[in-house]
Amino acid sequence: MSERMAVRIEDVVRKEYKLPDLVLQSGRELTDATLVYETFGTLNSAKDNAILVCHALTGDSHAGSTAGYPGWWDGLIGPGKALDTNRYFVICANVLGGCSGSTGPGSINPLDGRPYGMRFPIVTIRDMVQAQYHLVKSLEIDRLYAVIGGSMGGMQVFEWAVTYPEMMETYIPIATCGRFSAMGISFNNVARQAIYNDPAWCNGNYYGRTFPQKGLNLARRLGMITYRSFELYEERFGHSMVPIDDPFVMESEFQVEKYLNYQGDKLVQRFDANSYLYLLKSMDLHDVSRGRGSYSHVLDRINARGLMIGIDSDFLFPAGELLDTAELLRAKGKEVVYREMKTIHGHDAFLIEFEIMNEWVGEFLENGGKTK
Amino acid sequence: MSERMAVRIEDVVRKEYKLPDLVLQSGRELTDATLVYETFGTLNSAKDNAILVCHALTGDSHAGSTAGYPGWWDGLIGPGKALDTNRYFVICANVLGGCSGSTGPGSINPLDGRPYGMRFPIVTIRDMVQAQYHLVKSLEIDRLYAVIGGSMGGMQVFEWAVTYPEMMETYIPIATCGRFSAMGISFNNVARQAIYNDPAWCNGNYYGRTFPQKGLNLARRLGMITYRSFELYEERFGHSMVPIDDPFVMESEFQVEKYLNYQGDKLVQRFDANSYLYLLKSMDLHDVSRGRGSYSHVLDRINARGLMIGIDSDFLFPAGELLDTAELLRAKGKEVVYREMKTIHGHDAFLIEFEIMNEWVGEFLENGGKTK
Repeated sequence: MSERMAVRIEDVVRKEYKLPDLVLQSGRELTDATLVYETFGTLNSAKDNAILVCHALTGDSHAGSTAGYPGWWDGLIGPGKALDTNRYFVICANVLGGCSGSTGPGSINPLDGRPYGMRFPIVTIRDMVQAQYHLVKSLEIDRLYAVIGGSMGGMQVFEWAVTYPEMMETYIPIATCGRFSAMGISFNNVARQAIYNDPAWCNGNYYGRTFPQKGLNLARRLGMITYRSFELYEERFGHSMVPIDDPFVMESEFQVEKYLNYQGDKLVQRFDANSYLYLLKSMDLHDVSRGRGSYSHVLDRINARGLMIGIDSDFLFPAGELLDTAELLRAKGKEVVYREMKTIHGHDAFLIEFEIMNEWVGEFLENGGKTK
Repeated sequence: MSERMAVRIEDVVRKEYKLPDLVLQSGRELTDATLVYETFGTLNSAKDNAILVCHALTGDSHAGSTAGYPGWWDGLIGPGKALDTNRYFVICANVLGGCSGSTGPGSINPLDGRPYGMRFPIVTIRDMVQAQYHLVKSLEIDRLYAVIGGSMGGMQVFEWAVTYPEMMETYIPIATCGRFSAMGISFNNVARQAIYNDPAWCNGNYYGRTFPQKGLNLARRLGMITYRSFELYEERFGHSMVPIDDPFVMESEFQVEKYLNYQGDKLVQRFDANSYLYLLKSMDLHDVSRGRGSYSHVLDRINARGLMIGIDSDFLFPAGELLDTAELLRAKGKEVVYREMKTIHGHDAFLIEFEIMNEWVGEFLENGGKTK
């Protein structure tokens, strides 16, 4: 794991799980890997109240709040919230390939004691899910009450539902898809290339040297555009400039540019560039049907009851994708609810619109997702 | 002008106009500047059949076809088409700041005989229009029958309508806006930074040295994403990969990635990176109301009859922006028609959907845009 990550409060509360040797989707092996995870609430004696939360691209295991340190999904996890920690045992693990404790390209390769860098094997969404499966089993949980997540987290939810259909009562993918789109792959292509083009990246061998901050900053700027909406940016920034005597110089800056640069710099402080490359690639390769037959056919495997939440202003994962999949499932007689958020916030609404998500997710979990 | 540009057929037919000394919107002066332009059709004796075509970001003066070499708006310009060269005298000039003949950052600074590079003054959309105004006057045309253009070309159309309201009968902005959006500025920010981050860029001093092709290629890839639509990419590329034995390597490539890289390389062959920076900046600064009062107030200046064409799948210039402006104008009693293309092609539909554009533009020009 990268030395650049500062010690944070969650280092105190997070747990480590040493994975068994994994055979990855690629056929390659990964040994000596670790998942870092956190739990919120208490596992009941029947062990049937566990909910697995899957995080998005730059998330980590700190989904709920601990010791006053807010989690990234604090609005949904906690007493009285949809993922009620008085009732449920919430688990969240940093993904394989990540940089917040779990094994990833910034980790030390046990074979030579040096960071993997680009020698780290490609991990797919399916591999992340396989790792989470072992973690869940290690906690002696045979069946999850729910698997939930947004964006890349929702990709994991889809893989869970297809790969381990007997392992869950319900699944809740939000602002995501079962197979990544050509446009999503395009944005990821530009983001990855932005990192490759940074001379400091050095083919991934920058550990202990200069971090490719320009590259990761630029990749993040692009991400931040795709996570929001035209209307939000218009309302929030419009055409206003950072005050300057003469705007007619190349260096003059609009407020939205300052914001994007700030967001880019913020990510550089906490995220590893190689992890970013690997996780984007895992998204690109995401297709629940890869190696399994047609997309529609593969959905037959799903046994759990689903709640799919689309976002009307999401242009990275258009709501129509989730709706199409929900309709395919319904045509097969599967139990699935599709709901669509009306919001100005775009893709990131799954990290913002907690009122409506608490209502929908809470209601759905209340009766175990039963619609019949 | 950059030596990298090959001699093309249009070099034979294009004309040069030496501009008078210009005072730019910034207050800076630009001397010894040239506009390169082409004309299609014949100016009548009354000199009232001239139509000015304004090109988009990477366009040039070769809008119509000449000697069998198709122009970029060939589908709209020619005998029997909306811009009927049997009736109209069509003019198209390469913009100030461009790299296809007109003076731009790749041109020689007469003060020291070296390329301007980043010493070139910022030119705005308003400056481009001022230069075109002088060109039109030099052709002894006092009043244009129409000014038409899409995207950055449409920005020029708006500036024309506001700045020289007595100089035209009609104006036709397509897939554009009167003031650039925060989201548009955001995409341009990432594209510019992609060029800045290329070590070969050398603060713009790369003429006669290594061209910053990685940077411009990346900027163009991003552009190509924003010019198309989610649905088009899905239909055309979907999740299909370039054939490879093992897709689980970082180098594996999706078809859409190959396409974007190809488009990036293609632009590198014909466009100057510094021009790209300057033209993006001109778009960012585009606001017909800059220095003139409120946006709504400034629209009072418009005298000509307008046809505005929005594109329903355009996420760079959402149709709603044009519609809002059309409604503001209508509320002021101005004559304006708003039409919206239903198309899968996204922003670039103005370069593709010729059937519907010929119908709408042809019909509008037929009666001089009169709606009353």
